[in-house]
Amino acid sequence: MKIDEAQLAGKRIAIVGAGAVGSYYGGMLAHGGHDVHFLLRSDLAAVKERGMWIHTKGEKIHLQPVQCAGRPEEIGPVDLVIIALKATANGAMRELLPPLIGPDTALLTLQNGLGNEEFLAEHWGAARVLGALCFVCINRMGPGDIHHLDHGSISIGEFGRPVSPRVKAIAEAFRAVSVEANPVENLAAEHWRKLVWNIPFNGLSIAAHANVAEVLADEGMRTLARELMEETREAAGLLGHEITSEFADWQIERSSSMGGYRPSSMIDFEAGRPVEVEAIWGEPLRQGRAAGAPMVRLEMLYRLIRHLAQRAQA
Amino acid sequence: MKIDEAQLAGKRIAIVGAGAVGSYYGGMLAHGGHDVHFLLRSDLAAVKERGMWIHTKGEKIHLQPVQCAGRPEEIGPVDLVIIALKATANGAMRELLPPLIGPDTALLTLQNGLGNEEFLAEHWGAARVLGALCFVCINRMGPGDIHHLDHGSISIGEFGRPVSPRVKAIAEAFRAVSVEANPVENLAAEHWRKLVWNIPFNGLSIAAHANVAEVLADEGMRTLARELMEETREAAGLLGHEITSEFADWQIERSSSMGGYRPSSMIDFEAGRPVEVEAIWGEPLRQGRAAGAPMVRLEMLYRLIRHLAQRAQA
Repeated sequence: MKIDEAQLAGKRIAIVGAGAVGSYYGGMLAHGGHDVHFLLRSDLAAVKERGMWIHTKGEKIHLQPVQCAGRPEEIGPVDLVIIALKATANGAMRELLPPLIGPDTALLTLQNGLGNEEFLAEHWGAARVLGALCFVCINRMGPGDIHHLDHGSISIGEFGRPVSPRVKAIAEAFRAVSVEANPVENLAAEHWRKLVWNIPFNGLSIAAHANVAEVLADEGMRTLARELMEETREAAGLLGHEITSEFADWQIERSSSMGGYRPSSMIDFEAGRPVEVEAIWGEPLRQGRAAGAPMVRLEMLYRLIRHLAQRAQA
Repeated sequence: MKIDEAQLAGKRIAIVGAGAVGSYYGGMLAHGGHDVHFLLRSDLAAVKERGMWIHTKGEKIHLQPVQCAGRPEEIGPVDLVIIALKATANGAMRELLPPLIGPDTALLTLQNGLGNEEFLAEHWGAARVLGALCFVCINRMGPGDIHHLDHGSISIGEFGRPVSPRVKAIAEAFRAVSVEANPVENLAAEHWRKLVWNIPFNGLSIAAHANVAEVLADEGMRTLARELMEETREAAGLLGHEITSEFADWQIERSSSMGGYRPSSMIDFEAGRPVEVEAIWGEPLRQGRAAGAPMVRLEMLYRLIRHLAQRAQA
């Protein structure tokens, strides 16, 4: 799918990493009539047999049959690969992606944090690469059983380029199935805006074992969260992505309505699963430092989380 | 016991907080023939019946009978109160100490960190107050069963005054029973020197769940420990207590020989007992800040530990 292609209709789409996020966004495109192929592992037999359920906004969407495969070779080259693997599994992409990639295949990563577009660009060329930020609460309750709880918007952009016809086409396809989708001119700036929340709240969910309400209820944690936002904002500014102080204030404010929300990193950490340490804390620290931001608190948070995550994995 | 008194012999001594440290140092004085009274709670019946055992340097010292009481009124005014309560229990002293205090009673606190001498001075007058730092590994295995594992030296000084005759007398009494005891001219400076190790290693034992060997084995943790030492050193310097960079380097180095040593704060934290958060991190932060030290990492560590300790207590 080339940069100037303005239609998603008729394209072959593959979903790599069909957890909650990949299943939801891929499933919604399939529901919209697109030709979507899911690369599955443990869920393969169950989804083949019973299809996929998406519980969303009071509706139950049943997709049956679902086009799915256990190996990328069974899917073959597609026009668009949507990647929703954990960033910690990027290494696996070197084997999973090549069979899916033809001369004009576009790669859209929905992964968290920084460095994921760069990884794809480095291996398969920057021209293919798109990225998206998902603002959504989804749970995968079991194989093919996807519960969309809240929000759901997706911001899609080109890697290092302004909005293209293909970005608009993908956004349009999502909107056609009532998924809010926004093309973004500056993907990196959007990542930094999302990090303003993720760095402190995902971070303290691990380092202080505190959900959002617990961070906000403790004066010291709340102040620390705001200071981490300030460090993130400063680094983003030095990298050319201006984020206002009011935006950070509003991030604290809007968090009050989240109650005891447990950031995804907390859930992963407590379940003993890999945490996206480098994408959420390591890479922002390295980029911010390179731009001259001191980021003393982020560095300390990064070191603590890396240590704690390694222990939990050991 | 007035500042100019040069003899501990013939004095009445009370031990408040007869855990491992209080029992060991009080027990050694009793073993040396001094008139020592232990204020006990849960261990009272057992110690009354079976006495106290101190396992030290291959020796088993049996004290029987042990002078002990369940209430301070039963002991009455003494010449010297040795306080080994957790700093978190300082509130209890307002009830425990008055019955023990006569016009010339001296108060010697063996408690960790900063603020303990100040607390005593504020309530019962600065002239009475002495402090000590204990460099010792002791375990209390059961009521009256004290195992002295390693080290054992005690550094004793006046609160805000140079070494006095009574300091020398107390040190002499310890040395008479083979406990290394050193009079110190500047107690506050000694506290800061001890904090150079305690702030990072006790701190990371809670925030990173890491024993000494684990801190040293992780490059990020080891660097953070050294940076926390640097912040502590800087604050001490601004407060007039110069500590060299070489001293901090040596604190890292000597830690290598400690293996998987678990700092006392880690043991307390993991057992769900109160942690001396204010004495070890809060008060040094406040004093350092007041002197103009930024202490950004210590502040973050303090906030994390306070949060984690409150959770563990909740």
